[in-house]
Amino acid sequence: MKVVHLKTKNRSELLDITQNINKMIPKDLDVGICIVYIPHTTAGVTINEGADPSVQQDILNQLNQLVPWDQSLFRHLEGNSAAHIKASLVGSSVTILVENSHLQLGTWQKIFFAEFDGPRHRKVFLTFIHK
Amino acid sequence: MKVVHLKTKNRSELLDITQNINKMIPKDLDVGICIVYIPHTTAGVTINEGADPSVQQDILNQLNQLVPWDQSLFRHLEGNSAAHIKASLVGSSVTILVENSHLQLGTWQKIFFAEFDGPRHRKVFLTFIHK
Amino acid sequence: MKVVHLKTKNRSELLDITQNINKMIPKDLDVGICIVYIPHTTAGVTINEGADPSVQQDILNQLNQLVPWDQSLFRHLEGNSAAHIKASLVGSSVTILVENSHLQLGTWQKIFFAEFDGPRHRKVFLTFIHK
Repeated sequence: MKVVHLKTKNRSELLDITQNINKMIPKDLDVGICIVYIPHTTAGVTINEGADPSVQQDILNQLNQLVPWDQSLFRHLEGNSAAHIKASLVGSSVTILVENSHLQLGTWQKIFFAEFDGPRHRKVFLTFIHK
Repeated sequence: MKVVHLKTKNRSELLDITQNINKMIPKDLDVGICIVYIPHTTAGVTINEGADPSVQQDILNQLNQLVPWDQSLFRHLEGNSAAHIKASLVGSSVTILVENSHLQLGTWQKIFFAEFDGPRHRKVFLTFIHK
Repeated sequence: MKVVHLKTKNRSELLDITQNINKMIPKDLDVGICIVYIPHTTAGVTINEGADPSVQQDILNQLNQLVPWDQSLFRHLEGNSAAHIKASLVGSSVTILVENSHLQLGTWQKIFFAEFDGPRHRKVFLTFIHK
């Protein structure tokens, strides 16, 4: 298992971690998969467009609209229930195919650490499985 | 493949299945992954905070608010479209890293069976892949 | 890695790809997993009920209600931010267990390519890992 350490800068943020993951791919991985796992409960991981940063902002804004921070319904006393809910909507792991030690992403795809309760020091767990 | 059998008690419920999964991990699994798969269309699986049960309640309440049970729009005659939609939002599988036969969860993370149309008898499929 | 080529017909569509995947399963796969990966940023993959097509329509309608196409908030100039957001909500990969070269789906489950910005030519990446 490999661990990537991150420092997020905002309360909500999509941080492109594609290069962090690329650096960790074993040189001898002909065919296999990469699992990206987020060991946090107020953050997740998602794959989406990296070319236009507006897309990332639109995703975060829409999630904030769907799950607003301040709701009288919430009972969790830490006050960050919205972040927990967004983590479950986005998910805590993604699996990507690997060939010749390269992630098989689509043309516009980047892998994003999805921070929902930052800024914080965060970790990403990675593993690679040979076919 | 291993199968865990569950009995949910409520219409909506997050049932902590971390211990059920822990019991199934092969003793000889040095490094690998665990795949948790839900073979149902009105339930899912999610990883989130286990310490404060309010978090689970806040997640379920928010999902009910986003996807209310009774909507004139729904065409599916069984009347449980909301449960199908929540299943697709939360997802039907999670992958967790394993080292020395231990799930590599974050400090606050637990694995939850997400019941959206209970109470019912349910199943969870598990498999473990060696690196 | 195997690639399935698709042609979607609508702006929003859940296209059943279960048979496309079944055809790709190696004959000698006793026990393992199948990873279905979508290399697009305005489409995803989800597992849900296949028997009644109303379920698929209800899922798409509800997603359109949660994330409407036209919003003054959106900044991405291509105008398809709603599709990007739905892709992140539904997810870009699923993992399914395989035994004796058969996908271990639940009774009512089918695997759907989730088109959110069609009609388009699309691809699905597949890989199979032996246990």
